Amino acid sequence: MAEIAPIVDAARSPYAARRPLPFSAVLLEGGFWSGRRLVNGLAALPHGHAELVATGVLRNFARSIAGERSGYEGKRYADSDLYKWIEAVSYELGRAGKRGGEIESALDGAVDLIEGAQESSGYLYTYYQVLREERDRWRHLDTDHELYCAGHLFQAALAHFRCTGERRLAGVARKLADELCRSVGPGKIEGLPGHPGIEMALVEMYRAFGDPSYLALARYFVDARGKGLCGGASYNQDHVPVRRAREIAGHAVMQLYLLCGAADVYLETGDSELLGALERLWDDLVLHKMSISGGVGARHELESFGEPYELPNDRIYNETCAQIAAVMWSWRMLLATGKARYADHLEWTLYNGVLSGVSLDGTAYFYPNPLRSRGSPRRSPWFDCACCPPNVMRTLASMHSYVATTSDGAVQLHLYDRARISAALPTGERLDVRLDTDYPWRGAVRIFVERVESAREIELSLRIPGWCRRAGIRVNGRDLPGPIGSGSYRSIRRAWKAGDQVLLDMEVAPVLYVAHPLVEPARSCGALARGPILYCIEQTDQVEGASVLASTLAPGEPIGEESDDSLLEGLVTLSVLGGGSPAPASESEPLYRQRGASDEPADGGVPFFTAARARGGGGGGRIPLRATPYFAWANRSPGPMAVWLPLEDR
Amino acid sequence: MAEIAPIVDAARSPYAARRPLPFSAVLLEGGFWSGRRLVNGLAALPHGHAELVATGVLRNFARSIAGERSGYEGKRYADSDLYKWIEAVSYELGRAGKRGGEIESALDGAVDLIEGAQESSGYLYTYYQVLREERDRWRHLDTDHELYCAGHLFQAALAHFRCTGERRLAGVARKLADELCRSVGPGKIEGLPGHPGIEMALVEMYRAFGDPSYLALARYFVDARGKGLCGGASYNQDHVPVRRAREIAGHAVMQLYLLCGAADVYLETGDSELLGALERLWDDLVLHKMSISGGVGARHELESFGEPYELPNDRIYNETCAQIAAVMWSWRMLLATGKARYADHLEWTLYNGVLSGVSLDGTAYFYPNPLRSRGSPRRSPWFDCACCPPNVMRTLASMHSYVATTSDGAVQLHLYDRARISAALPTGERLDVRLDTDYPWRGAVRIFVERVESAREIELSLRIPGWCRRAGIRVNGRDLPGPIGSGSYRSIRRAWKAGDQVLLDMEVAPVLYVAHPLVEPARSCGALARGPILYCIEQTDQVEGASVLASTLAPGEPIGEESDDSLLEGLVTLSVLGGGSPAPASESEPLYRQRGASDEPADGGVPFFTAARARGGGGGGRIPLRATPYFAWANRSPGPMAVWLPLEDR
Repeated sequence: MAEIAPIVDAARSPYAARRPLPFSAVLLEGGFWSGRRLVNGLAALPHGHAELVATGVLRNFARSIAGERSGYEGKRYADSDLYKWIEAVSYELGRAGKRGGEIESALDGAVDLIEGAQESSGYLYTYYQVLREERDRWRHLDTDHELYCAGHLFQAALAHFRCTGERRLAGVARKLADELCRSVGPGKIEGLPGHPGIEMALVEMYRAFGDPSYLALARYFVDARGKGLCGGASYNQDHVPVRRAREIAGHAVMQLYLLCGAADVYLETGDSELLGALERLWDDLVLHKMSISGGVGARHELESFGEPYELPNDRIYNETCAQIAAVMWSWRMLLATGKARYADHLEWTLYNGVLSGVSLDGTAYFYPNPLRSRGSPRRSPWFDCACCPPNVMRTLASMHSYVATTSDGAVQLHLYDRARISAALPTGERLDVRLDTDYPWRGAVRIFVERVESAREIELSLRIPGWCRRAGIRVNGRDLPGPIGSGSYRSIRRAWKAGDQVLLDMEVAPVLYVAHPLVEPARSCGALARGPILYCIEQTDQVEGASVLASTLAPGEPIGEESDDSLLEGLVTLSVLGGGSPAPASESEPLYRQRGASDEPADGGVPFFTAARARGGGGGGRIPLRATPYFAWANRSPGPMAVWLPLEDR
Repeated sequence: MAEIAPIVDAARSPYAARRPLPFSAVLLEGGFWSGRRLVNGLAALPHGHAELVATGVLRNFARSIAGERSGYEGKRYADSDLYKWIEAVSYELGRAGKRGGEIESALDGAVDLIEGAQESSGYLYTYYQVLREERDRWRHLDTDHELYCAGHLFQAALAHFRCTGERRLAGVARKLADELCRSVGPGKIEGLPGHPGIEMALVEMYRAFGDPSYLALARYFVDARGKGLCGGASYNQDHVPVRRAREIAGHAVMQLYLLCGAADVYLETGDSELLGALERLWDDLVLHKMSISGGVGARHELESFGEPYELPNDRIYNETCAQIAAVMWSWRMLLATGKARYADHLEWTLYNGVLSGVSLDGTAYFYPNPLRSRGSPRRSPWFDCACCPPNVMRTLASMHSYVATTSDGAVQLHLYDRARISAALPTGERLDVRLDTDYPWRGAVRIFVERVESAREIELSLRIPGWCRRAGIRVNGRDLPGPIGSGSYRSIRRAWKAGDQVLLDMEVAPVLYVAHPLVEPARSCGALARGPILYCIEQTDQVEGASVLASTLAPGEPIGEESDDSLLEGLVTLSVLGGGSPAPASESEPLYRQRGASDEPADGGVPFFTAARARGGGGGGRIPLRATPYFAWANRSPGPMAVWLPLEDR
């Protein structure tokens, strides 16, 4: 099969510190992510198509073709749901090749509709084609979603073109992009997309087709922000120019898609002020505005970021799309800088904050991803605003993109999974390796060098994750000398030859995380994790009488580990001793009481602001708690769930 | 001056356990609440009129008079802002009498406009009169605010009629009520107000004018809920019939106004199932859904109640109107049952959750009332949705209504302030007393019996607040024998005579409150209070280097008290020892770190998910903290504020 370009094709971007491998150069098989991808391909993609049909998204294109002026179904950005699904299906076909199955017919049918709906001018946006007048086009960029949908079309078209070799959708995309560049920009219609996303897509179109007007428009969309073209509010990312921003703010997905676009602009232009802003904003994100799950965007209200440390557990928003956008951004930052922190964040967010957004069977979704639940949330097969499901689909179908990169004379491994990697270096060398591992459940990764084409030494860099306290590396059975620091890359420079073996052995042990003291809902609490996997406790796993919401954690006690095949192949559960449940705080106890007081209220009823009966058995017997990966929650019996548990320190 | 009926005139309601005193029977002077009322009358009411003029509320009535069909200004419920202001001004005049001042001219002008805008049919709702067709009237009860505005008109008209003796606005109200009863109800247009409020107003109209159709319609509006007439969602209080509800839910003000109406229906009908539901729901409110400030309605999203124990500090909504509605409900529950808990809640909420909604100078307001702030919130002179300011105005202008009640042969004192009370008992006796006290800053209340008309003993009941740990009572210098329980009434039955003196001496000492362990943001924290006053710490009061947001509290240390006249006459501030600030948690420290780990991250930048540098000086030196009443926050230099402080227990 021909080489397929990477999804962020920075292979020739002048300011990329790391080069993405071709899409076709990494194969995940038999490991954690290939399992998730299998479910995604077999269950999620057909499910997604059925939902797109049922909710009328495809019919909107048919209406455009027929010239109908009413009957549009769904949200005004529904086109983008189809585009993301096409992107996902294309990635899937890029891995497996076309085989004439149902999903391919569905894809072809969708491409037919899109092609048919495009007008001769290149215009394409079914919501406007059906419901609005021609004079409205490009005139409401700040409130409508023409540009947002165009961006997703571009991404879908590039995925389709790159993965299937077919040019139809790419042709649609180019015609639309050209029409857009004719219509919008400095000296033409000046405006900004209310919902960013098109910026990175335009840069990707530039990478694919070389037209500098695409890059120029992307740059304009990045640089024109903060000048009131889009209402001036942080919600729409118009409160401050990107390069002057000091705080992650506004609608989470909008903010993060915009920063993806800004990072793409940097990769092509080397605008160092822009990179400085991006690094500063990224720090703000992970230092002040991220749940321990990697979830980002705290507020239900306006789907926005909150203030620093505003990270509730129960009411956190953490939209699945926001975590995906954060991964996309960190990937670009990694390409731009090569710094391990971006890969750390990307890995952690993928395993926890993104994966929590989809059921283990691939067909039910969370839009918000809370860290604590009284038991009511259930995953939904689809949403009225269906951005998240196809976003998960395209992410899982392209997971292998994030595994490795190259630079001059060097290969970097970022994620560990069972994989085959064929790395052609920018300097001409080639290094093919095979990875064997039970990661993330076990910390040993065996790297088999299968083929080398090089006249000189190649540097192989292994990421030592930030969560990893201890790691060792053996090359052909011998310990690699020198320090191995966590949160960094350990490089092995060597004249590799086929048959060489590297063993990276990371200590994967249960640990307790604590939060910054300004994170109020996590105060005095601990969260269990093991390797890159965050854990939670669900009611369904607990012994009779143990209440998840009233449980505490005894931090001095050892934490047990056990493999469990019933949830997911090879998944490791944790067992810890907790307390609190023999006499949990009752719901009839007062909300507030005076410290030290113990009298009954006189009127015998609600003990309002006075002291309640003394709590019986507080800090009493210990009970076992069973913890399972956070990403796997809400897949079995509904019931309370908690990530943060109060520590019995006192 | 003639006797003025109470604002909730349950004096003849067959199922009232307690009788409200006439509006004119209690005079507050020289104490805490008369100070607040003075500011309200002198500053807030003229300010409110200027805002009502500036925002076009009065012009909307002029447009209705002129038959204009465009140009309506403000929200569709703007009429109600004027009505609440009229209610407040009427109460103010009811106390002071008309004296021909500017505020009276403004009132008369407003009444002229309202009278002029009413159509001959009785219809009155300027939003519809200006912008909608006649066929729309009463046809969109669930989404528009005809009934909500009508309810506020009724309350305003009754206040105006009762306090000034003028009948003009009462005539408008009766005409509108009669038109409403002709149009809406079983067998007519069947529907429910999307925003409740009219229920209690209709009962009050029934009390004032005796027309049973008013009570019947109120009862219908209470009983028809939960049947889908209003969309079926909890937001609009249509998810369950009131009498079957088990949980406080939906839009907070809508929920609480509805329950006020249900309580009023109970007071007239004795529907015991309804009372049972009300008592159950009230318990749910104070046991599960109330901030320690008395603030209610946790969510910004839909201005609604959250789940049990969902009580964030920074992002709590706690709309000022919701606290006012809770006070209105507790007052009705107190009238219905005589139970001390309702007076406890009412007092606590007034001093803290309501009073926090208005600046000390009376002209700037909070819509949400958070318990923690990084320093950004500022009070606003008005809002686009201006429900809160005039709601505060009418509450402060009628504070004396909540001081005392009577029952057969008995007088109950609920709130303590400098006051003159003239209590005519339902059984014909009369007891006039004068209260002298520095409450809430001091716990001593002297009650001077000034006049008695009775042939037999009268029971005088003194509320011993739930917050009060120790209290003593002396009658004419002699200790009253027998127990004095907090959260109850202590009755003194006696053949009172003029010159008798009672001294109630409540211990008013600083205490620490702790929260139910399921209130996550208050976990391991304490909140300072003293008597009925909740305290907070503001940055402006702290010593150099002490950070409000990083401060902890040393619970074993004594708490100092000091009077401070600079903020509010006689206000008591607290001083405590805290810690944490010499080496506060820095904003560059990682959000999450492994417990016990201490390595630097290898790439020297953001220590993502790895261990940070060890915290220097944790739990180190003690620093003094100064606490001021929560209600008085955000009146000086803007800066961080916190109510809950982590306790240094460990």
